[in-house]
Parts: sequence; structure tokens; C-alpha cells
Amino acid sequence: MNTSKEHITEWLKQLQDSICASLEAADGKSAFREEQWTRAEGGGGRSRVIEKGAVLEKGGVMFSAVSGETPEFLLKEQQHSNIVGAGTPGKHQSTFYATGVSIVLHPQSPMVPIIHMNIRYFETVLPDGREVKWLGGGIDLTPHYVDTNDAKFFHQTLKSLCDKHHSDYYSKFKTWADDYFFIKHRNETRGIGGIFFDRLSESEAMSFEQNLAFWKDVGTAFAPLYTELIRRHKNEAYTEENKQWQLLRRGRYVEFNLVYDKGTKFGLETNGRIESILVSLPALASWVYNFPIMTGSAEEKTLQNLQKGINWLSFE
Amino acid sequence: MNTSKEHITEWLKQLQDSICASLEAADGKSAFREEQWTRAEGGGGRSRVIEKGAVLEKGGVMFSAVSGETPEFLLKEQQHSNIVGAGTPGKHQSTFYATGVSIVLHPQSPMVPIIHMNIRYFETVLPDGREVKWLGGGIDLTPHYVDTNDAKFFHQTLKSLCDKHHSDYYSKFKTWADDYFFIKHRNETRGIGGIFFDRLSESEAMSFEQNLAFWKDVGTAFAPLYTELIRRHKNEAYTEENKQWQLLRRGRYVEFNLVYDKGTKFGLETNGRIESILVSLPALASWVYNFPIMTGSAEEKTLQNLQKGINWLSFE
Repeated sequence: MNTSKEHITEWLKQLQDSICASLEAADGKSAFREEQWTRAEGGGGRSRVIEKGAVLEKGGVMFSAVSGETPEFLLKEQQHSNIVGAGTPGKHQSTFYATGVSIVLHPQSPMVPIIHMNIRYFETVLPDGREVKWLGGGIDLTPHYVDTNDAKFFHQTLKSLCDKHHSDYYSKFKTWADDYFFIKHRNETRGIGGIFFDRLSESEAMSFEQNLAFWKDVGTAFAPLYTELIRRHKNEAYTEENKQWQLLRRGRYVEFNLVYDKGTKFGLETNGRIESILVSLPALASWVYNFPIMTGSAEEKTLQNLQKGINWLSFE
Repeated sequence: MNTSKEHITEWLKQLQDSICASLEAADGKSAFREEQWTRAEGGGGRSRVIEKGAVLEKGGVMFSAVSGETPEFLLKEQQHSNIVGAGTPGKHQSTFYATGVSIVLHPQSPMVPIIHMNIRYFETVLPDGREVKWLGGGIDLTPHYVDTNDAKFFHQTLKSLCDKHHSDYYSKFKTWADDYFFIKHRNETRGIGGIFFDRLSESEAMSFEQNLAFWKDVGTAFAPLYTELIRRHKNEAYTEENKQWQLLRRGRYVEFNLVYDKGTKFGLETNGRIESILVSLPALASWVYNFPIMTGSAEEKTLQNLQKGINWLSFE
């Protein structure tokens, strides 16, 4: 398998194309608008945004590939990376290359879940000449109302995908997602989680090529997974109360993204393209002081399921 | 003047009472709901929230007085405080006391500005036995549409208030507000600023008593200032486009509070009462990708005025 950055970049662009096509077909009304942008320090991106669709109220499928001199804080972070081999003599100019596809979709209907997916590739030359490269990514689901059948389907799909590559990946990356997509100040998970992983390069068990194959499968799994969830729920009836609850849950989504999300923070702190970074925020969100939760209500049940460590595969 | 924490606390509670009474009179429809809460580690508060008023869509006038063992990070921060006198022998148990009133009001009408005010008192005994006490606060205005007459009136009122106490205070605290209420990732100020100050205790020019008198004046100025702005604009007509713009500006308010505001961060990180902390977020906010700003529009003019360093007193 070709593991060059050129190949990975090209693959990501095609993934963006195919995901947008699938989502437009599932929406049936609205189309993505594209904007290409460049970054002064190097590279750029292709932002694709859909708004006011029949199914999708607002969403972005964003591709970017940026490069340049490695910022100091990125260099420091590489101490957590798995760096192999010895350096070469002399001091080297450290450059980096980062490319990825990021998706957040906010549906019109409170019965259709919010979804997020991100896959990214990063490489850099360290000042001692060694090269670092790794893969990261994740996919997680944020239902406004937790549907346990959907949760089982979603997690089972991710587990089967992971199991094809490594028997530990699902349990490891599912736990990672529970920990990552957590709104600490609310003591709630953002949704029902999924998988999250970072700094995947090569290990005793897995070559970089093998991890790249896993990573591609995550990207490829996105469209069939989400379009199936759309199909299941897009025609479901809902009330004004359901809509109000959706706006409140979107408020929580905003809280997570602005307070905790590392990708968002990274973008805000590195002077990224602000409209692309914050396309993850919903068209409309609400905050109500001390919102009352009725005993036995669907809202109460949902809150009880927004906790870490739930095994959705055997959930009754 | 009595400078004891008991006196300051009692004064703040009375301020909360009188501000709520003034705002209810100005609103003419809705009343504040009160909730009293206690904090496991010591102290508590009186949260007062208004919702669905004729003028005020959502707002909080929050009083709190909390105490306990001084957390490590608060102790560290005191290195920036003006600590006078010598320590006493022996190691002392470090305790703190913090009390304040915090206000954020989101009006129904896009023609009425959002306002924020906070005044706070903090005291602690350091491990070496020395005592630290200081005053902090600020008041700033966030119009959805900048009205230069209002801006002049708002800043002139604050300048006159400051000038009564110290000739440097307005220019110093106005600049501080410009720097503090700044949304870096948007390169926009949150609104037209106001004044902001912190760690005011005693200096060569001002005794603690004199600073306390200034600080009380800030608190007392709030109600007449804001009710005057309500009076000016509450009956102004507005369009659907104005309302849409208001929701977008509220989105910016959310961005500031969740990404930058120190009081919010402090509350989230110290396990504060979450509903009281986030009462500052609006009932409804919106984000639109690449929202188009028309040349020559009121929205464009407003954005041009959301910058640091504008002298509103001589603004033409």
C-alpha cells in the first residue's frame, strides 16, 4: 500500500467527494457549497458546507492539507509520539505536513442524531533529522434522544471494523472516546461515544501500512453508517418539546467544542480559518436556566445514558 | 467607612436586591426567581434569574459568598497581588473568602444592548500569616447594533464615576476592558467595552477605603445606566433581519464566555454551581457559516466599531 503523504492527501480528497455525494443523496434537497482557501504559511483547504437541507440543517465536510515550519508547541508535543530510528548529524529545519477530513452534521430533526468524524495524518521532521508520522481520528454519535438500538448498531459496526485490524482496538478506542467526548462541568458524555485514537504509527503488532488500512476503513465507514441512521429516523414525528430539547442538547455540543475540543482549541490558537473551524457549531442552540427534567421522561432516560463506560453491545 | 467582609457582603446583598427591583420595574412583566444554594466546602449564594420578560429575555443577578481552605492555584495567583506588611512566625492555615455580584442580561429586542457587570471582593490569609484582600470588577456593554450616542453616554457615565475617585482610573480601566473583552479568534471586541479592574487594594495614591468607595459606585451605577438604555430602545421597531443578527451576536457572546472569560473558566474548573455560572448564556444563539455582511449596512458599521482603542467620548 502506498503510504506517501501525496497518496494519503489524494485519498482524503476522494473521501470528501464521496461522503458529500452520499449526504446530498440522503438529504434529497440541499447541496454542499465549496470554498477553497489557502493559508499564508503553506497549504490550504476545501471547505464544503450544507445548510437548510431537508435532513441536514447545517453541516460541514472539511478537507485541509497544511504545511510549514513546525511551530514550537507542535514540536514539544511530539515527545508523546512513537519516534523510531536514530537522528542524522547536523541540525535540521523542522517542517510539518498535516492533512485531514473533519465532519460535523446537525440534522433538522431532533430524532436524527448529530454526528462527528475526523481523520487526520501528521508528519514532521524533527530538529535531529528523525521523521515522525502518525494517524489520528475518531467517529462519535450525539443523539438528542438516545435510541439503544441505534447505539448497538453504531457500536457494533465500529467494533466489527476495528476487529478486522486488531482485537484490542475497539475496546481501547471506545474507552478513549468515552474519556475524550466528556463534558466535565456537566458530568455528562457528549453523546454515546464511538471510537477515538491518536498518534497511531507503528507498533510491534501493527505496521504503519496496517494502521493506515484501519484508518481508511474508519473514513469509509462514515457515509453508510450515518445514512442508515438518517433512513431510520428522518420521517419520525416529533413535538415542539422534542425540538426545544434538541436546542438544549446543541447548547451542550457548543459547550464541549468551545471548552474541551482539542481540534477547535488548536484551530483558535494557531490562527486557523475561523469559519471552517466553527462550522461545527449549530445554526441554533439554546440555554435554559435549571431546565426541568420530568421523572420517567425520554429526556431523563437520555441523560442517564450520557455516561462513560456503557457497554452498548450488550445493552438491554 | 466599614471595610469588614461582613459589611461588604451585606452591602452586596442589598445591591442585588435594589438592582433586581429596578430591573423588574423596567421590565414591567416578569419577575426574578430566587434560588439559594450552599457549597459543600463553605458558603453559598443567592441566584436570581429572570426569563421571558417584556424587555429581558433571560438574565441573572447572582450573589455569592464562598469560603474555605485556599486552593493551591488561588494561593499561587496571589503573587500578583499587592501584599503589604511582614508575615508572622509559624505556618498558618490558609483560608479564603470571596463574595460578589455578577450580572448578565440578554434583552428580547436586538435594539437593546446586552450588559454585564461584576464586582467582587477577595481576602485570604497566606501561609506566612500575611493577609491579602482586594477588589475587582467591571461593567461592559454589548450592543447588537452599536449606537454611538449610547456609547458616548455609557463611557461618559463611567468616566465621571471614575474621575470622582482617581484621575487615572477611567483611562486605565477602559484600556483593561478593551483588552479583556476581546474575542481574539474573531479579532473583534465583545462589544463597546466599559471598565475592568482587578486586585485593587491600596496604593500610594489610594487607601483600601477609597478604593472600596469607587467599587461601590460601580455597583450603584449599574441600574440607572442600564434602565436608561432600556428606556431609549425598548419600543424601537425592528425586523426579522435585526433579530437574526442579534442571534449571531449572541453566538459571539457564547464564544467569548466559554473560550476566554476568566470567571467562567474559574467556575468550570473549581466545580462551581454550573447553572449559576452558565446563566450568562443566552436563551437562543445562532451560528451561520460565512454570514454575508452587506457594504454600508448597519451590521458592517457595527463590526467596524468592535475594535480596541476607540475613544467613545470624542467619537463622531
